[in-house]
Amino acid sequence: MDCFAPLAMTMIVLFTDFGLHGPYTGQMKAVLHRMAPGVPVVDLFADAPLGDPRASAYLLAAYAAWFAERTVFLCVVDPGVGGERPAIILEADGRWYVGPGNGLFELVQRRAAKSRCFDIAFAPERLSASFHGRDLFAPVAAMLARGDEPPGRRRNDDADRRPDWPDDLAEVVYVDHFGNAMTGLRAAVLSSETKLAVAGRVLERATTFGDRPPGTAFWYENSNGLAEIAVNQGRADHALGLAVGSAVAIIA
Amino acid sequence: MDCFAPLAMTMIVLFTDFGLHGPYTGQMKAVLHRMAPGVPVVDLFADAPLGDPRASAYLLAAYAAWFAERTVFLCVVDPGVGGERPAIILEADGRWYVGPGNGLFELVQRRAAKSRCFDIAFAPERLSASFHGRDLFAPVAAMLARGDEPPGRRRNDDADRRPDWPDDLAEVVYVDHFGNAMTGLRAAVLSSETKLAVAGRVLERATTFGDRPPGTAFWYENSNGLAEIAVNQGRADHALGLAVGSAVAIIA
Amino acid sequence: MDCFAPLAMTMIVLFTDFGLHGPYTGQMKAVLHRMAPGVPVVDLFADAPLGDPRASAYLLAAYAAWFAERTVFLCVVDPGVGGERPAIILEADGRWYVGPGNGLFELVQRRAAKSRCFDIAFAPERLSASFHGRDLFAPVAAMLARGDEPPGRRRNDDADRRPDWPDDLAEVVYVDHFGNAMTGLRAAVLSSETKLAVAGRVLERATTFGDRPPGTAFWYENSNGLAEIAVNQGRADHALGLAVGSAVAIIA
Repeated sequence: MDCFAPLAMTMIVLFTDFGLHGPYTGQMKAVLHRMAPGVPVVDLFADAPLGDPRASAYLLAAYAAWFAERTVFLCVVDPGVGGERPAIILEADGRWYVGPGNGLFELVQRRAAKSRCFDIAFAPERLSASFHGRDLFAPVAAMLARGDEPPGRRRNDDADRRPDWPDDLAEVVYVDHFGNAMTGLRAAVLSSETKLAVAGRVLERATTFGDRPPGTAFWYENSNGLAEIAVNQGRADHALGLAVGSAVAIIA
Repeated sequence: MDCFAPLAMTMIVLFTDFGLHGPYTGQMKAVLHRMAPGVPVVDLFADAPLGDPRASAYLLAAYAAWFAERTVFLCVVDPGVGGERPAIILEADGRWYVGPGNGLFELVQRRAAKSRCFDIAFAPERLSASFHGRDLFAPVAAMLARGDEPPGRRRNDDADRRPDWPDDLAEVVYVDHFGNAMTGLRAAVLSSETKLAVAGRVLERATTFGDRPPGTAFWYENSNGLAEIAVNQGRADHALGLAVGSAVAIIA
Repeated sequence: MDCFAPLAMTMIVLFTDFGLHGPYTGQMKAVLHRMAPGVPVVDLFADAPLGDPRASAYLLAAYAAWFAERTVFLCVVDPGVGGERPAIILEADGRWYVGPGNGLFELVQRRAAKSRCFDIAFAPERLSASFHGRDLFAPVAAMLARGDEPPGRRRNDDADRRPDWPDDLAEVVYVDHFGNAMTGLRAAVLSSETKLAVAGRVLERATTFGDRPPGTAFWYENSNGLAEIAVNQGRADHALGLAVGSAVAIIA
């Protein structure tokens, strides 16, 4: 990753449950391009677990760690929009996160060596009741990306934290285009002997897809460190009946 | 929306029924990036009502109004491509629209304080029979985005207009990723007492999602001013059997 | 296509079976934006034939020909990732292709007037077992896009070639958002009298959609030169039961 131009030192990354086709992602990008011109905007997930900040929190923490410092994550999995949940900015290990304070950043913050949290103090001219992603979070993400001070007040309480959530989540948190099922478990906390039980099946750990015969189900460490369930030359979701939310058990 | 860089003063917005995954949106963007380098291109809808310029016209008019002046909308919902329909440019209230003259811009034009319409006079070197979005409309959109004069002749007749279409459309025009169903009705023309009848159900108006108990269906004004049917913590499309084209009745 | 800015002289085009929603396309774009800042990145196909480099090869060859010289194609249809297949760079008729040497570039190379092939010699700091698109191919594509020498060694053997594959593929290789079914057959090698037999039906050639009555199935030359099966005002995939892989027979 050499040869950075100054303008590209930062990047805005989208993590939402909005879908890409409809108007929501596009309207947020329109705000970002106007307020932070020239800053690249990358779609990471537009299909995070729908309306589920808890499952999303484990997915976000695993994928955000791959990005460079100064990256700004604009994150919207926000079933409580228009209600009481706070709107927050988190700085964690040099990366910025903007979104609802509903637990979505709990695992990022818990795993960070260093973090600071802010209540958003920016008041847009128009704030719709149902689309804070466009009206509130996108402008704040743009400000951070262009180097402004965080438009917020340091948060001192823990109203946005979820201390009762586990360190790793024994559930399927994402099913990809190939039918592979990511869990909320970090492979690094599991041993090479660990088996995962899912949908009545017990699965062994493999190193790569080629390790197992075609049609065999197994789990492996994916390219972002999550334990992922797969079938060599097949679809794990169909073969095992998996979906986001399917429970997983760890057999040590 | 402060701090605009000159290069970002304009933006090209895509409104199509092409889908994002296949080659059509990408090939149009390749033309735009080559002919109008540095101008941001935003996907607004890639899943406008399929082959339905009428339903699309109400969706476009509601969403285009949110964008800044000088925005160029490249719009392709064009079941008659290769046939007789004209290829037009519309300037309305400072925004530009490029696409087929099949009624797609009818509601934008009708609601505009000020508008001008042009027949496209640009002749590309190669014009495929089935992909005017790439070969004709994208080059014209790029020209407008970079500040060229509109490459067309002022249109004096009304061959592209649809005076018989209603001012608001009592139909579902879009179902989003959450299962919410947007109608072609502007909430501003309905009162707080207005009920909407859809699929055998009568729905009351709510202010926000939190206004109604979980599982309850209702309608509300969405973030772009359309009357939208939703279910708190549920999917309105599944719960009520709604799809694009479902009829809606207004109960005053 | 006049008025190019120097920075936009090149473009990176993505051709994958990854999907757009999940993390894979976004992570590749993050690498590209960091290593080749300012170079436009265009999604051509994110839903190439899943895990099928052979069908994908015919689709890629048809669509790549439309792009300008110097375009860099980052191509990942790679069921053998982590196994023995080579990682290659192909230069063909002035365009660059980066991806797995599993036949994906066979038709591009076979149809090129002039080509050179390289084994990738770049070794990233971290190479995951399952995501060479992000860790290996994207950095190499970025290097080529910014004008570096190809980071590889000239390949002298034919281990990546597939001489047994036909010059045109009599199969459905893509079904688009409208239900139209593209074949791997170039229309230019078929006559105006050629009929295509598919799913028990014999289809005549049409020039445009308007040539045939509503509901009629036919084939025509699509905007990138492939023989494509369509139904006027209908969906060919549903009407004829077509999917990627469906066999097509040529009736001269």
